[in-house]
Amino acid sequence: MQTLTRLDLDDARILMAGAEAHARTIGVPMCIAITDEAGQLIAFQRMEGGKVTSTTIAIDKAFTAAAAKKATHDYGTASQPGAPAYGIASAIGGRLMVVGGGLPVLWNGEVVGGIGVSSGTPAQDQAVAQAGIDDWIARQAK
Amino acid sequence: MQTLTRLDLDDARILMAGAEAHARTIGVPMCIAITDEAGQLIAFQRMEGGKVTSTTIAIDKAFTAAAAKKATHDYGTASQPGAPAYGIASAIGGRLMVVGGGLPVLWNGEVVGGIGVSSGTPAQDQAVAQAGIDDWIARQAK
Amino acid sequence: MQTLTRLDLDDARILMAGAEAHARTIGVPMCIAITDEAGQLIAFQRMEGGKVTSTTIAIDKAFTAAAAKKATHDYGTASQPGAPAYGIASAIGGRLMVVGGGLPVLWNGEVVGGIGVSSGTPAQDQAVAQAGIDDWIARQAK
Amino acid sequence: MQTLTRLDLDDARILMAGAEAHARTIGVPMCIAITDEAGQLIAFQRMEGGKVTSTTIAIDKAFTAAAAKKATHDYGTASQPGAPAYGIASAIGGRLMVVGGGLPVLWNGEVVGGIGVSSGTPAQDQAVAQAGIDDWIARQAK
Repeated sequence: MQTLTRLDLDDARILMAGAEAHARTIGVPMCIAITDEAGQLIAFQRMEGGKVTSTTIAIDKAFTAAAAKKATHDYGTASQPGAPAYGIASAIGGRLMVVGGGLPVLWNGEVVGGIGVSSGTPAQDQAVAQAGIDDWIARQAK
Repeated sequence: MQTLTRLDLDDARILMAGAEAHARTIGVPMCIAITDEAGQLIAFQRMEGGKVTSTTIAIDKAFTAAAAKKATHDYGTASQPGAPAYGIASAIGGRLMVVGGGLPVLWNGEVVGGIGVSSGTPAQDQAVAQAGIDDWIARQAK
Repeated sequence: MQTLTRLDLDDARILMAGAEAHARTIGVPMCIAITDEAGQLIAFQRMEGGKVTSTTIAIDKAFTAAAAKKATHDYGTASQPGAPAYGIASAIGGRLMVVGGGLPVLWNGEVVGGIGVSSGTPAQDQAVAQAGIDDWIARQAK
Repeated sequence: MQTLTRLDLDDARILMAGAEAHARTIGVPMCIAITDEAGQLIAFQRMEGGKVTSTTIAIDKAFTAAAAKKATHDYGTASQPGAPAYGIASAIGGRLMVVGGGLPVLWNGEVVGGIGVSSGTPAQDQAVAQAGIDDWIARQAK
């Protein structure tokens, strides 16, 4: 048997609120998704003006980051033409996201969940996801 | 051209909180999804102990209720063997839900969104969805 | 944060071996799938003569039993025409299985995984799944 | 009529065990899938720490290698921008894998199955798949 730790709904809300706050700061309404460590959705919100297409994209970014234990922008680098993971973007029915904005959430060196953000540029999406993690970690430290 | 009214994220949060409160009252952790009038997801949460399978089911109940402008339990009745909508349950890749727990959200006689709940019995799911709507309507009246 | 227990690969092998032994006893070659508590596949085998269609069915039975925390034959009863969960069989793209042969694996009252069996009659499938669980529990007790 | 030779479950176990042994040697927990010559799954295992996303990816690599009679990394080369098979990665709902780690299993010059490995780098995945084949061939020779 295996014992593991994962995000709960309270964690998900903190991650989502931290991301939303940063999205407001930069003025880009976002879709924000939080999954557990297995990539299963815990919470989601589409801010006013967030893109409908970004609903699925944010959920799949969080899924990829958690279930593959890897930031989606790292897959972006690894899957460029000529790079080793070229073509991975269409795996799992296209759910494996290689566009920035999905980050694994780590605790004590273990992946405990994922956050996925979409509607801005990939750099904005990634910054908003990171802001959610930073805020969550700051609260854990208290 | 057409002007329409739909739920925003604040509405979704009120609907979700009202549903969650009722779920706690009856002691059944639920997956709760809110969509806009087009059936597109606005917000979702899986309470601690909510079923993983219910993630998709709650989202699809809300989608069905909003986009078909019909409670999912009404489709349950209409899709029994011999009834006119028999077989509709497998439509749209199985997204059209005919199990209770999905309700359209109405405002001034118009469908402005949907709420979908899953993890309990269909009767419990439906009661929790209704509680979310009741709470939202009570707040609108103030 | 949430701490939970789930099956590991050694558990999965024991469950699969116990099920296989019973399948040989009754002379029905089976597809056997084991998932973790989130419904994600840990191990699978198709015995010689097991049906190709049963590959997906066994995996989806294990997924349903674990992720919905419910035996698939219980869904069979609950989803008959006129019963509350009628129509649930086509949910999640048809992955939600209501045919017997999927059982949640429990430990200390918590669902820690699922086992799904397919290729025989549903009653045979269920008996083979139960044999896997019985064998695993007997070994845990030692 | 046609007579064909394909892997059986015992072969699949040998292939999987050889791959697992090499995965342990390089310290990368892997998802390992074995299919018959038609690309249909015979056996699968996710080692402790193997990625959830790699479940589907390993199965699809084995499927591609067997059913297309071609190593997945060869598709990687053939599907680069400007190359003849450009765009093939999204075929079959994304099941056609062009990332290394899927190898056809040959016997007397005929494809009798496939092995797919995922969770490491594509080079690691491919090496682990090859180790499974090497071990199986060595045992056949005895």
